[in-house]
Amino acid sequence: MAEGAKEKYVEELVDQSDDFSRWYNQVVRKAELADYAPVRGCMIIRPYGYAIWEHIQRLLDARFKETGVMNAYFPLLIPRSFLEREAKHVEGFAPEVAWVTRGGGEELEEPLAIRPTSETIIGYSFARWIQSYRDLPLLINLWNNVMRWEKRTVLFLRTAEFLWQEGHTAHRTLEEAEERTRLMLEVYRSFVQEDLAIPVLHGRKSENEKFAGALRTYSLEAMMRDGKALQSATSHNLGHNFAQSFDIQYLDADGQRKYCATTSWGLSTRIIGAIIMVHGDESGLILPPHVAPYQAVVVPIWRKDADQGAIMEAIGRIERMLKGKVRLKVDLSDNTPGWKFNEWELRGVPVRIEIGPRDVQNNSVVLVRRDNRAKEAVAIDALETRLPELLAEVQQALFQRALAFREEHTYYAETYDEFKEIMSEKRGFVRVKWAEDSEAELAIKEETKATLRVIPFDQPEGGVQGRCFYTGKPATCEAVFARSY
Amino acid sequence: MAEGAKEKYVEELVDQSDDFSRWYNQVVRKAELADYAPVRGCMIIRPYGYAIWEHIQRLLDARFKETGVMNAYFPLLIPRSFLEREAKHVEGFAPEVAWVTRGGGEELEEPLAIRPTSETIIGYSFARWIQSYRDLPLLINLWNNVMRWEKRTVLFLRTAEFLWQEGHTAHRTLEEAEERTRLMLEVYRSFVQEDLAIPVLHGRKSENEKFAGALRTYSLEAMMRDGKALQSATSHNLGHNFAQSFDIQYLDADGQRKYCATTSWGLSTRIIGAIIMVHGDESGLILPPHVAPYQAVVVPIWRKDADQGAIMEAIGRIERMLKGKVRLKVDLSDNTPGWKFNEWELRGVPVRIEIGPRDVQNNSVVLVRRDNRAKEAVAIDALETRLPELLAEVQQALFQRALAFREEHTYYAETYDEFKEIMSEKRGFVRVKWAEDSEAELAIKEETKATLRVIPFDQPEGGVQGRCFYTGKPATCEAVFARSY
Ligand SMILES: [Zn+2]
Ligand SMILES: [Zn+2]
Repeated sequence: MAEGAKEKYVEELVDQSDDFSRWYNQVVRKAELADYAPVRGCMIIRPYGYAIWEHIQRLLDARFKETGVMNAYFPLLIPRSFLEREAKHVEGFAPEVAWVTRGGGEELEEPLAIRPTSETIIGYSFARWIQSYRDLPLLINLWNNVMRWEKRTVLFLRTAEFLWQEGHTAHRTLEEAEERTRLMLEVYRSFVQEDLAIPVLHGRKSENEKFAGALRTYSLEAMMRDGKALQSATSHNLGHNFAQSFDIQYLDADGQRKYCATTSWGLSTRIIGAIIMVHGDESGLILPPHVAPYQAVVVPIWRKDADQGAIMEAIGRIERMLKGKVRLKVDLSDNTPGWKFNEWELRGVPVRIEIGPRDVQNNSVVLVRRDNRAKEAVAIDALETRLPELLAEVQQALFQRALAFREEHTYYAETYDEFKEIMSEKRGFVRVKWAEDSEAELAIKEETKATLRVIPFDQPEGGVQGRCFYTGKPATCEAVFARSY
Repeated sequence: MAEGAKEKYVEELVDQSDDFSRWYNQVVRKAELADYAPVRGCMIIRPYGYAIWEHIQRLLDARFKETGVMNAYFPLLIPRSFLEREAKHVEGFAPEVAWVTRGGGEELEEPLAIRPTSETIIGYSFARWIQSYRDLPLLINLWNNVMRWEKRTVLFLRTAEFLWQEGHTAHRTLEEAEERTRLMLEVYRSFVQEDLAIPVLHGRKSENEKFAGALRTYSLEAMMRDGKALQSATSHNLGHNFAQSFDIQYLDADGQRKYCATTSWGLSTRIIGAIIMVHGDESGLILPPHVAPYQAVVVPIWRKDADQGAIMEAIGRIERMLKGKVRLKVDLSDNTPGWKFNEWELRGVPVRIEIGPRDVQNNSVVLVRRDNRAKEAVAIDALETRLPELLAEVQQALFQRALAFREEHTYYAETYDEFKEIMSEKRGFVRVKWAEDSEAELAIKEETKATLRVIPFDQPEGGVQGRCFYTGKPATCEAVFARSY
């Protein structure tokens, strides 16, 4: 894609602070992460973007399996009657469903929905698979594509079709379902923080914001560099709702037939948008080493052809040494070194390895960090230990930087006037005392566009004192509001 | 699923030789590989079946990446106008397409096809991504779901929706495209033979049987235990056909704009059907160790409770010893040992590890092979080396047994009368001298239901002598006919 690449640098990347959403779109396109598809609202995930998703899948899947979850596959198409069985569920999803009405040259008797999510067809199957308490818990995960017909679309963040995983479990008791719901939120939290270097608030969603059909929804909320929140993963305790609609029962040890308690939980390609918006800077993408398709890029620098042999020999040694340890890209294209620096910075490779004639003479290379541009000369023989160490340092530094940013942009509002002032003048999260009033929540959203992102698990020791910032009623918790993606 | 499981053994597995297709369906259901979905023609791949697919994905994906292929994701929905651009292609696929006609509460202006395959939307994108010869070759693979509205469906073998991978590449010359088409067939061949232990014929499809829109199609054909053929993977040289329809051009080094030559190649969840039908026997499934979800199952055998402690301690040692080396299942359910033997034989686990009080005293266990029931006593300390070795022996033995079966059931017919006799009285592959006549091919199919499976790469040294078995015209090659799935 060399020709296309040459054109794309002619136009500089817009400043993050001038136009964040334009910066975002430029990064997605220039870094070749994704493209709009010729079908409205759908996206093509290009190889570089998809490689990030593959690392996400690999790392998250291993974490799921450690908790006893097994993967399966469920059909893409769901009969209309299934969606209609859980009243709240259909209310939430029906407006955004895409319908298949013809197949094999004939009109279908019943329209089939392209799954917006699979609770209903899972419910149908669980009812057939589960007979006794010995079959429980049943712990299933699906990696698949889903479709929600969105009006306004943004690559990765909101597209008609997206990729995700959806976990579905069935349990003997409501307590066990609650435990699993929280466990999966914790799995997401450690994954997002440790592997994606994104600090998150974890907690409960309000009644207004919970999943259509859930008893309770928990979520992770991350702060983007424009101060908006992005919901990074959700975990739903579905209680007996779907079990009752789909008749998921089991014979308990006491000889009684009882309803299962079920859960569901998901994380989608949306999270790639969060990686971009949490870590990126004026030069483009910065990828956390754990999920970077290339963790380091080697850029050879020769001034005359005679230098080439020794440099290529050294690069060969480096490749052999790092094989299976570091994901390495060697850029041998005929672009200039300066060009390559820009390109791989834009594409967010965590570390650059520069190697010129003098480096080869000294049997060393220069390592340049993407996040802070710090340079260090390292002996080639030491790369094997120093580079993985440096990548771990970058991973840590990204997390710390994002955490500092979030703390800097988190405010406490005592009154609604303060709240509105923060919302209109600053960007960020606003933490308030809250009396859990759904109508107040809607009024705040209407006036300020801020929504209740989460009621964090981390609450003041000994409970919340004082009154709700909006209604003046006795506060029951602290809540975090923000504008969001 | 203990209750359900108890019922399922009440009814015995039907004999393979009595009713092969009923045997097949019983194995798929009883081994909990897959289920019919409530949507006509669609399937649910259950965790045990999906785990086989995950191993297939992992092993095949690594082989693709070794040849420079990168994964990507393309949209599920394809505009009708795209399908119509390549005349042969639309003719081949239009009858089996499922159409989305409504989305987000509105009728769509143009119906959208659920992808039956992605050549057209790939063509659209390649045309935009490729500018110069420096962008070539472009090597992409997609792991996704596709839909073809089939009338008669069989789990794994023919379902309206299935999972697969589809590779798509673009090249500078027709020669390079041909080379890639053959390379990918070879990747499939080594994967299917080495990892799935399935011997295959490799070669070219006839004009009648090639992919809709291809210049040439190559395929792998495997023989099932009922003598029928199953096409296990295909690789298509698309020549300039799609490049012309979608205007995929590049600027060559000589300053000329030229059409790319493209290829596509695929392998689907169908291959799980082949694993079942090539290796299975009267007791159920036999899984090749490379893709078995569990490579060995530990069955403890205690007569009295007092035995339990020592046995459990030994099992703990075995688990620690084999961790990361062998995929192990320890069956601690309260079923009897005999029950467990039957269950895990039905589910095809390659090796059973029996451990009773006397074994523990001797510090040993008994290994039982699934394929031939051979038993051996092995010291627990030796398991770490002996078990992986035994699994490799089983993998080899499965391949050899299948190869011997295929050779036993491959016939040579000199005349059409001989051919018809073999087709009506024996089961298997019939190899004939052939003059590549499409009308003759259709007539043979009409009369005998046998189709030309493949013109094998392996042809007689020095070319084919003599005349076509059907037309009497001078033969141009040897061809293999069979009934097929
Ligand atoms: Zn906490
Ligand atoms: Zn050969």
